[in-house]
Amino acid sequence: MVPRYARPQMTALWEPEARFKIWFEIEAHATEKLGELGVVPPSAAKALWDWWATNPAIDVPAIDAIEAVTKHDVIAFLTWVAEQVGDEARFMHQGMTSSDVLDTCLAVQLARASDILIEDLDKLLEVIRRRAFEHKLTPTIGRSHGIHAEPVTFGLKMAEAYAEFSRCKARLIAARAEVATCAISGAVGTFANIDPRVEEHVAEKLGLAVEPVSTQVIPRDRHAMFFATLGVIASSIERLAVEVRHLQRTEVLEAEEYFSPGQKGSSAMPHKRNPVLTENLTGLARMVRAYALPAMENVALWHERDISHSSVERYIGPDATITLDFALGRLTGVIDKLLVYPERMMKNLDKMGGLVHSQRVLLALTQAGVSREDSYRYVQRNAMKVWESDGQLSLMELLKADADVTAALTAEQIEEKFDLDYHFAQVDTIFARVFGAS
Amino acid sequence: MVPRYARPQMTALWEPEARFKIWFEIEAHATEKLGELGVVPPSAAKALWDWWATNPAIDVPAIDAIEAVTKHDVIAFLTWVAEQVGDEARFMHQGMTSSDVLDTCLAVQLARASDILIEDLDKLLEVIRRRAFEHKLTPTIGRSHGIHAEPVTFGLKMAEAYAEFSRCKARLIAARAEVATCAISGAVGTFANIDPRVEEHVAEKLGLAVEPVSTQVIPRDRHAMFFATLGVIASSIERLAVEVRHLQRTEVLEAEEYFSPGQKGSSAMPHKRNPVLTENLTGLARMVRAYALPAMENVALWHERDISHSSVERYIGPDATITLDFALGRLTGVIDKLLVYPERMMKNLDKMGGLVHSQRVLLALTQAGVSREDSYRYVQRNAMKVWESDGQLSLMELLKADADVTAALTAEQIEEKFDLDYHFAQVDTIFARVFGAS
Amino acid sequence: MVPRYARPQMTALWEPEARFKIWFEIEAHATEKLGELGVVPPSAAKALWDWWATNPAIDVPAIDAIEAVTKHDVIAFLTWVAEQVGDEARFMHQGMTSSDVLDTCLAVQLARASDILIEDLDKLLEVIRRRAFEHKLTPTIGRSHGIHAEPVTFGLKMAEAYAEFSRCKARLIAARAEVATCAISGAVGTFANIDPRVEEHVAEKLGLAVEPVSTQVIPRDRHAMFFATLGVIASSIERLAVEVRHLQRTEVLEAEEYFSPGQKGSSAMPHKRNPVLTENLTGLARMVRAYALPAMENVALWHERDISHSSVERYIGPDATITLDFALGRLTGVIDKLLVYPERMMKNLDKMGGLVHSQRVLLALTQAGVSREDSYRYVQRNAMKVWESDGQLSLMELLKADADVTAALTAEQIEEKFDLDYHFAQVDTIFARVFGAS
Amino acid sequence: MVPRYARPQMTALWEPEARFKIWFEIEAHATEKLGELGVVPPSAAKALWDWWATNPAIDVPAIDAIEAVTKHDVIAFLTWVAEQVGDEARFMHQGMTSSDVLDTCLAVQLARASDILIEDLDKLLEVIRRRAFEHKLTPTIGRSHGIHAEPVTFGLKMAEAYAEFSRCKARLIAARAEVATCAISGAVGTFANIDPRVEEHVAEKLGLAVEPVSTQVIPRDRHAMFFATLGVIASSIERLAVEVRHLQRTEVLEAEEYFSPGQKGSSAMPHKRNPVLTENLTGLARMVRAYALPAMENVALWHERDISHSSVERYIGPDATITLDFALGRLTGVIDKLLVYPERMMKNLDKMGGLVHSQRVLLALTQAGVSREDSYRYVQRNAMKVWESDGQLSLMELLKADADVTAALTAEQIEEKFDLDYHFAQVDTIFARVFGAS
Repeated sequence: MVPRYARPQMTALWEPEARFKIWFEIEAHATEKLGELGVVPPSAAKALWDWWATNPAIDVPAIDAIEAVTKHDVIAFLTWVAEQVGDEARFMHQGMTSSDVLDTCLAVQLARASDILIEDLDKLLEVIRRRAFEHKLTPTIGRSHGIHAEPVTFGLKMAEAYAEFSRCKARLIAARAEVATCAISGAVGTFANIDPRVEEHVAEKLGLAVEPVSTQVIPRDRHAMFFATLGVIASSIERLAVEVRHLQRTEVLEAEEYFSPGQKGSSAMPHKRNPVLTENLTGLARMVRAYALPAMENVALWHERDISHSSVERYIGPDATITLDFALGRLTGVIDKLLVYPERMMKNLDKMGGLVHSQRVLLALTQAGVSREDSYRYVQRNAMKVWESDGQLSLMELLKADADVTAALTAEQIEEKFDLDYHFAQVDTIFARVFGAS
Repeated sequence: MVPRYARPQMTALWEPEARFKIWFEIEAHATEKLGELGVVPPSAAKALWDWWATNPAIDVPAIDAIEAVTKHDVIAFLTWVAEQVGDEARFMHQGMTSSDVLDTCLAVQLARASDILIEDLDKLLEVIRRRAFEHKLTPTIGRSHGIHAEPVTFGLKMAEAYAEFSRCKARLIAARAEVATCAISGAVGTFANIDPRVEEHVAEKLGLAVEPVSTQVIPRDRHAMFFATLGVIASSIERLAVEVRHLQRTEVLEAEEYFSPGQKGSSAMPHKRNPVLTENLTGLARMVRAYALPAMENVALWHERDISHSSVERYIGPDATITLDFALGRLTGVIDKLLVYPERMMKNLDKMGGLVHSQRVLLALTQAGVSREDSYRYVQRNAMKVWESDGQLSLMELLKADADVTAALTAEQIEEKFDLDYHFAQVDTIFARVFGAS
Repeated sequence: MVPRYARPQMTALWEPEARFKIWFEIEAHATEKLGELGVVPPSAAKALWDWWATNPAIDVPAIDAIEAVTKHDVIAFLTWVAEQVGDEARFMHQGMTSSDVLDTCLAVQLARASDILIEDLDKLLEVIRRRAFEHKLTPTIGRSHGIHAEPVTFGLKMAEAYAEFSRCKARLIAARAEVATCAISGAVGTFANIDPRVEEHVAEKLGLAVEPVSTQVIPRDRHAMFFATLGVIASSIERLAVEVRHLQRTEVLEAEEYFSPGQKGSSAMPHKRNPVLTENLTGLARMVRAYALPAMENVALWHERDISHSSVERYIGPDATITLDFALGRLTGVIDKLLVYPERMMKNLDKMGGLVHSQRVLLALTQAGVSREDSYRYVQRNAMKVWESDGQLSLMELLKADADVTAALTAEQIEEKFDLDYHFAQVDTIFARVFGAS
Repeated sequence: MVPRYARPQMTALWEPEARFKIWFEIEAHATEKLGELGVVPPSAAKALWDWWATNPAIDVPAIDAIEAVTKHDVIAFLTWVAEQVGDEARFMHQGMTSSDVLDTCLAVQLARASDILIEDLDKLLEVIRRRAFEHKLTPTIGRSHGIHAEPVTFGLKMAEAYAEFSRCKARLIAARAEVATCAISGAVGTFANIDPRVEEHVAEKLGLAVEPVSTQVIPRDRHAMFFATLGVIASSIERLAVEVRHLQRTEVLEAEEYFSPGQKGSSAMPHKRNPVLTENLTGLARMVRAYALPAMENVALWHERDISHSSVERYIGPDATITLDFALGRLTGVIDKLLVYPERMMKNLDKMGGLVHSQRVLLALTQAGVSREDSYRYVQRNAMKVWESDGQLSLMELLKADADVTAALTAEQIEEKFDLDYHFAQVDTIFARVFGAS
């Protein structure tokens, strides 16, 4: 975890206090059910919950000190709770194994982390939607291969991002369901020493599904799918970040990250406004993506379990969720306050001397009966002149002076092909698809 | 693609012929709708379909030869079709861009590949289910950390695999839906030169969903999610493969890959029966997993598209699906014919002198009023003696001779804790969860 | 392997014929030494070499047919050779294990692949060097964060690439040494049934080092290092490819991939010249990079070996080397024929109204006694005006009209700070560092 | 960074204090040289060093507070130093850019981290060497595919590890040289505003090489190579860890991680001694390996630099080095105190009824003139009987009762083939290759 790329709510989820609190809840709910089932005295759960109702502080250093001796984290925690609660606490953890606690706790943490991330996505989507409608008909050049193609609108770019992050949200909801399961099934998952109803009870209380079959642990294909999904979401963040970085290039400058007055872009070049937030997001995406791999390597644990996954999850559990939360927040801020320059967009759009309209002319020629090959040749030879003039010549004028072209199209017909609005006729259709009926 | 890890049906999907056939269908369906809309003469589609009805051979070398000149694959293909069909063919591709064809084709290929993989999973699931019920109550030792823990059944191991591959199937169905979309939206996705109804028509004919908003290309977060999902499935294959490899170790030998009479395990050591199929699967899993990464890096294309994703997909499109198909088939064969040795399982289970029952004794002691710490100590000191005797001493006998233990438990009570069936009381419950009511 | 991204020389190295020829050489050299040592009759090697001298065709289908029965590739090969050579062939492979042949063969293949790649790098370096000197003093704007910074020369960009690929070459030479080892050490590496002098002999004959200690196999950390190195080289290819893609953007257009007359950039937009080669290289880099991972996962084989690495290497052995060879060749072609536009570079450089010289003014102010903070403030306020004018205002003129600035610097001193040549004073120094004394 | 997987010396290297101290040294050395060159007053450096000689505490919160306003870390640091040192400090950083400080600082950190890691490797190598000689002739079964093959010694296993980590050390030394370079070259690497001799001076003082050509930053292919190398080293750690995990399996139990008296293996099964350290190392290896990827993705920065690499390096700089340092330390401890059980090794070796000697018999038969195919068949049919008896039958006895075999070999000759020492004849040779002449 890198503090500068962390926000408090998500970070708190991974603090020892939060973990111990979830452990307690799991143990107390389990003891409660064990009491109902007559396995332990009902007084045991009552003692636990009574103590819990006093809102006790979790003494992390004390627990750590016990672990330093026992070299076992759950035993250390249980020992400490027993010291606080007294004799009744000895009934805790009856028939359970450490992993019942650890894995169910991780499920709670990942589910809560997912909830935060889903909220992040909702905020991002809201901001993107606003900018999309704001610039629904702001013309800008569409580029393939970095080269001017045909006109689009800036709103369409935002609509694409909206559709993409909507997919990300759906994926995250699915990924949350993957990992939000509870396992209280004992040493090798056979419930030999614990009634399956305990698991059902704890699952229900914690808002989890029951794990249909566990070994000692919850199977790690679930976590692999979860972290792989985060990696895909991070890649979508990178995509939008790279778009902003491109738009802010000196020669393009169609948009800029908001520049706060006190900010110095460079110690050496005071005029520079660098897209540092989106560059940063590009790097963060690389990290979240990388975490998918060890998560996948974690799947093939030996037999009923080994513990190799644990160290991996101590890194990627916090690192992937905290980083992604931060990145989504940062991206939301970038898009929210993005400085958009419609005039510059129009200027860039115009700068190629109308070349971006060549496709329409090409079509008009073929529709007028010229063969595809000839049409292509007529347009291309004029287009090349414009291209080589660096936008000084006008394609429309050249075409109007080309005998082969004018043999098929009138000047008026040629001019009509250079109309910008023509390209935006279906923007409503696309917006309806993406945002629903307005 | 490595021929020895490829099966014909999946491989055929990625052959040039298959690709060109899909291209033709896309173009013909589009021309059909363009005809209906009055953009091109209705005779154009008719000419195309009439030719197609003759079941013409696709002359791949001829198309390649044209591409060598034009350096553009779709133009090469269109040119070749025009040579076959004649004049009417010039109306093909009206208002479309190459990516309309290429990306929709890839969608068809990935959807069909998914169908094959889903069928593979169904076969694997069926085989696992059979072995699960066959060995539902075959006792075997459960191992955590590679160390004997408590008894499970071999059927439970299979049930875990069944649950895991059921999840894989659900993920694959979701992944298929991710990529099965059609885009016929023109040069930058604005439908400037093509009616959105063409896209809808082609989508419907090919069994795809309409891509709500495309640029020139279908957004690559979809493909990233697809290949990441394949990587997770591969990891589950690795898990089951590693289980078999462990079971076949000389000292364990609880199961073996089927050994065909003609097979020579080693040129040097004729007695060896090596788990080469599952070792091979372990390696194949590494490959499929690795392909998730470039797929994720493909997401952040520049602006409305660049073509960096294309070369990546020429590798991983075939390689990931062909390899996974082969691996699923191989795994199905391994599990289908796996030689399972229940006697050896029982022998291994017994070899630790009853140590695997220590957990039950521990619980009995605490339930009899001994503190958790003392219970642990009493059991551990006897368990250590057994451990150091390499299974020659019996834990049950030692406990019956330990005064602290007998102060809390009678000999009868101790003996009862060493009953194997006790551990399998919930097997029915678990099977019902995994396989449904029987 | 994707045929369109493969060149014949490298591909041939991975064909079955090539592999079988290397196998033969290993076996024949080993038999030769075994003959010298009196283990087998000297006539055995003679028979083998005599047959070999007839330059016999390798009948791959015949060998495959034998393997289909024996399910063992090396035995199949030995059987086939025995059929050709006759009785004397039975002395082949004495005391050896299959891996002695397979791993040593892989070492030969990877060493030869390295030789081709080193040659590729030499050609690339030569081309880069030529372009570097050609444009040693061609001014162009340096950009950090995509934003204009200070002037550099196009030759400097090339010098950076030269230095980077020189490092790549040194790394590749080191990586070659990693994998170029010979192991003929028997079933578990103990030389129990074969004299270590056989290994030494074969190593010498094949130009390999002796593997100091093998198990049954050559340790896979060597191969991991090899493929990781290829991944790093691919990343450097990506870097230069991305540079070209940026330079070719419509708004920048300082360089272009060579555009052959017959090439059509797009079926829809005939004027487009897309940087498709470098986009393609970007994708290829992703693939080669991805192959590093399974190579690293291959390291932890079980005990003296398992065979999980083998399937991985059947993919990445050819795929990584063939792809990298192709990519290096393609990049060499791109740089060789790159269209460079010095006029456009100068035009871009000028377009920011002299902002790129602000750093020099800043320094001049502090050297004239103005505090760092004040200097920064004076420059920044004028720079902002220029920035907002989109390059219409001139920083030099504004500074000459700023009273705070002129209090510290004369008009002449200000003007001197806008001299372009000032920035290139150390180009010779840098070139001498990179290319050596000229 | 996960505190439980971190050791103080390496962690300290990445603390803000350490970073700021290196920044100061870079700035002070540069100012010193600038003074010598007459660019700034010589008194400036003196003032800086005089202050430094007072061993001043670095007030990290104060610097952070300034950065919160300026949003620029180096400016914040310089401002704070100026507050401490006074007026003379304004000459610091003359002609430099932030990256000159940041990148050179990272070079120092990575070089120092390398030094710690090299020391770690030395300690590991020393421990492995000791165990190797201790068990030079301790017989144990060699296993391929997890199946008994032929005898090796435990010392040979250690010798393999020694050779592997010796290679790791050589690679790390090379990786250190990759990243230990100094760049003080200004805004775009042209030395426009700073004399190259400043760079040379700082490089020499800090024990770095001069970066031949930088842009604004040191090229990231260097760092990619560095982190890729760490990934390979981590993979070698995994290999040895997996070996220990296998040896400790209940059925194998040829070695065990040292078990400290206070340690509880499992809350549920007190008899269990789990190889948790090596399982943990397996997970840590996955993490270090994963960090290689974003490092490779960092290479292709845009033009003269973007800052996407920076966030990545804030994670992987500390995480990769701290984790690897911890892992090497842990592995050293594991090997140092590994409980090795020679008796159990011998017991396992014997359990297959002599099957492991089949290769020698096979050779003897062929040398006695039996054809390869017949020899194989004779041995295999007897070996199969032994195999199916689960080691109850003896291969030697069966062979002595096989008429085809005894037609070629006497009973004495057969017996001689089952001699264990035969396999260890070349152990001295191998040890001499690995450890040098003893």
